Amino acid sequence: MDDVFAEIERSRERFVDELCVLIRQPSISAQDTGVRECARLVERFMREAGIEARLLPTAGYPVVFGEVRSPGARRTVLIYGHYDVQPPEPLDLWETPPFEPSIRNGRIYARGAGDNKGQMFAHLKAIEAVLKTRGALPVNVKLCYEGEEEIASRNLPAFVAEHRDALAADLVYASDGPMHPSGPMVFFGCRGMLNLELTARGARRDVHSGLYGGAAPAPAVRLAQALASLWGRNGKVAVRGFYERVRPPSAADRKALRAVPWNGDAITKDLGVRPRASGRAFYEHVLLRPNLNIAGLTSGYQGPGIKTIVPHVARAKLDVRLVVDQDPDEIEGQIRAHLTRGGFGDIEVVRQGAVPPSRTPVDHPFGRAVARAVERAWGRKPVIVPNLGGTIPDYLFTRVLGLPSIWVPYAPHDEANHAPNESTTIADFLGGIRCTAAALFELAAA
Amino acid sequence: MDDVFAEIERSRERFVDELCVLIRQPSISAQDTGVRECARLVERFMREAGIEARLLPTAGYPVVFGEVRSPGARRTVLIYGHYDVQPPEPLDLWETPPFEPSIRNGRIYARGAGDNKGQMFAHLKAIEAVLKTRGALPVNVKLCYEGEEEIASRNLPAFVAEHRDALAADLVYASDGPMHPSGPMVFFGCRGMLNLELTARGARRDVHSGLYGGAAPAPAVRLAQALASLWGRNGKVAVRGFYERVRPPSAADRKALRAVPWNGDAITKDLGVRPRASGRAFYEHVLLRPNLNIAGLTSGYQGPGIKTIVPHVARAKLDVRLVVDQDPDEIEGQIRAHLTRGGFGDIEVVRQGAVPPSRTPVDHPFGRAVARAVERAWGRKPVIVPNLGGTIPDYLFTRVLGLPSIWVPYAPHDEANHAPNESTTIADFLGGIRCTAAALFELAAA
Repeated sequence: MDDVFAEIERSRERFVDELCVLIRQPSISAQDTGVRECARLVERFMREAGIEARLLPTAGYPVVFGEVRSPGARRTVLIYGHYDVQPPEPLDLWETPPFEPSIRNGRIYARGAGDNKGQMFAHLKAIEAVLKTRGALPVNVKLCYEGEEEIASRNLPAFVAEHRDALAADLVYASDGPMHPSGPMVFFGCRGMLNLELTARGARRDVHSGLYGGAAPAPAVRLAQALASLWGRNGKVAVRGFYERVRPPSAADRKALRAVPWNGDAITKDLGVRPRASGRAFYEHVLLRPNLNIAGLTSGYQGPGIKTIVPHVARAKLDVRLVVDQDPDEIEGQIRAHLTRGGFGDIEVVRQGAVPPSRTPVDHPFGRAVARAVERAWGRKPVIVPNLGGTIPDYLFTRVLGLPSIWVPYAPHDEANHAPNESTTIADFLGGIRCTAAALFELAAA
Repeated sequence: MDDVFAEIERSRERFVDELCVLIRQPSISAQDTGVRECARLVERFMREAGIEARLLPTAGYPVVFGEVRSPGARRTVLIYGHYDVQPPEPLDLWETPPFEPSIRNGRIYARGAGDNKGQMFAHLKAIEAVLKTRGALPVNVKLCYEGEEEIASRNLPAFVAEHRDALAADLVYASDGPMHPSGPMVFFGCRGMLNLELTARGARRDVHSGLYGGAAPAPAVRLAQALASLWGRNGKVAVRGFYERVRPPSAADRKALRAVPWNGDAITKDLGVRPRASGRAFYEHVLLRPNLNIAGLTSGYQGPGIKTIVPHVARAKLDVRLVVDQDPDEIEGQIRAHLTRGGFGDIEVVRQGAVPPSRTPVDHPFGRAVARAVERAWGRKPVIVPNLGGTIPDYLFTRVLGLPSIWVPYAPHDEANHAPNESTTIADFLGGIRCTAAALFELAAA
């Protein structure tokens, strides 16, 4: 890889300049700002890197689809990324304008620097560097860059279903999110999510608690009782069947979790309180166990002081973090059945979102190949995380396309994605380019 | 009473004009607007009516204190009222400006027309008419008009404690609030109130439910469980001792409640749903039974769609409507003990307000005298309501001063107090003047 890495090193300034061009093009999907322009720019950058590229339409923003055919290669790697970014607000907290990249102390500050332009662009530059030095890639590569990741990938499921054949590959490789605080990491899936809104209704408007208190229905009380019934006093979810499909961690999972660096003090400092568990148990809770959470509660008067009303409506937002082999539909059914059985059948349950969980075995041979590539790129072994606690649409690759899927974040742990003064380091951007290049060779040989 | 009533009839235009002068003087205690000017105006109107008047200072706005000594009278009536008004906002919903009284279809539209200027002014005009026709009142009268009723009478307790002697009387007579929808009414006390805010705390900020869900504390879940524990599944309060001091309704209470006109359809229409009880049971619930209510719930994300956070704090506002002989301190202690016993000792409980309940027996002889006065004033028997469901500081008279206290609203049921386009009818304003005049004679003879 020395020739490829040397080429990358020679091109570093140009690569950074080009990334800045990409960043300067706003692509705020939530605000319909510059997204299509950015798609065409990504297409152009793909072509300049030696990739056959075209825009594939969806019901929303197009997917930029790229392909490099490598005669004689026995593997096809499908690379996923996204070219849209989060809204930059609040603007007054940015030290420099969000779409004018500013380089300070080895970092590029801008919206999208880390999430995801700096990461998805690294794949293009790696392909370009390999093609330049070797004339061909060791594997076939396909690239699927969507423009709606920051708006819940809303057209990606239909796109994947429609383009199954075009997306055919041996595995998915992707870079998103921040690294582990201790350095580079590889992860193999994520928890899924089910979002429900529960609504209890009473009178047609808030009524005076002096006039009607005791005679008007009390939806806030009913909601509190319905919610409380979802958990046992031990904190475990009391919904029948909820844990039924939860797999115990495999030996490989347990081994990986034991090796994830544990810094309880940092977590306690971040939370301001001790977490419920520590070490491997902490990671098991947030990565491999499902969780039922109240994300929001609202009813009646919430200002300072007193307002003596019986609220006419009370609402709760629930999110369930799901792990394989839990299914959002089944879990929603269990929660509905639990409420009905408990006498809370009048409480409305509306689904606001669902993403199935996704897992690739942590000891998958492709995972070992990728880990070697990370080590070559950054000069150190990566942290192996079996699963993300958060949710990404990885199930489209593992469940819908049936592929193993392996993720390597290229942005530093403090990239401040979604926040003001987002940044990535130039070192990690270049590390990412080296990593993709090395991964193509490692996967060809795996 | 014919001579007195004839004098009132002759003066009706002047009385209405004078009331309009009083209304034109804003006295918005919550906004510190015109309150002291209004106090001086009330003092002037008292003097013009033949009442010895002075301003007695409090830590806030002054009490306008009036006195008419009647040589040889064996009874002293203490009349309570207030000269401050609610803020007029939202201004754009007023058909005519709030402090420019507009007379339309026999009604005076203005802020304070009903609450409480039109009612407290009726007492002055009654005294004036009696003095003019008879030369003296049949009883001694004291008037205590505060300027802070709309800001929770915050200095009235200290005032009453300090001026016990000056306030010495045989009973309290007062007019506030709207009449029963069926017409004039007399009531004999009110439910008390205890306002508590419960707060459950977790991390030092909202955290990502993907990153920390399952490991971070979940205060919204704890709050829901703590709240749910306060009620049994039958809807009754499960706090130990809560109902212990609740008196069963007396025979007189039950008789009075049976006679209160019941219009279930109107209540169902107002609520948009059927109330939990009907007829006498409804009135028992809202007038003579305590109630524990959730007036507000707040935690985490409450906007549209999804935000996947574990909220770091969850709050509930509770109000307890208390009946004699319940005591706010005792009830608060019971709720705190209940939470601690249930393992929720970490939930903060902060008192935001407390007003003890108050009762005068519905068959009190003074009550019968007042009911006769109402009948003479409006030509029909009043509805006898043992107790108000809402809360007024009546305990200061019954518990602190130890007096019977009897209330007769002079504003129509649709006065829209606290709302835009507040009004009273000229007929009820005049009825109120006749009623106070008649009550002075009936009470003298009782």
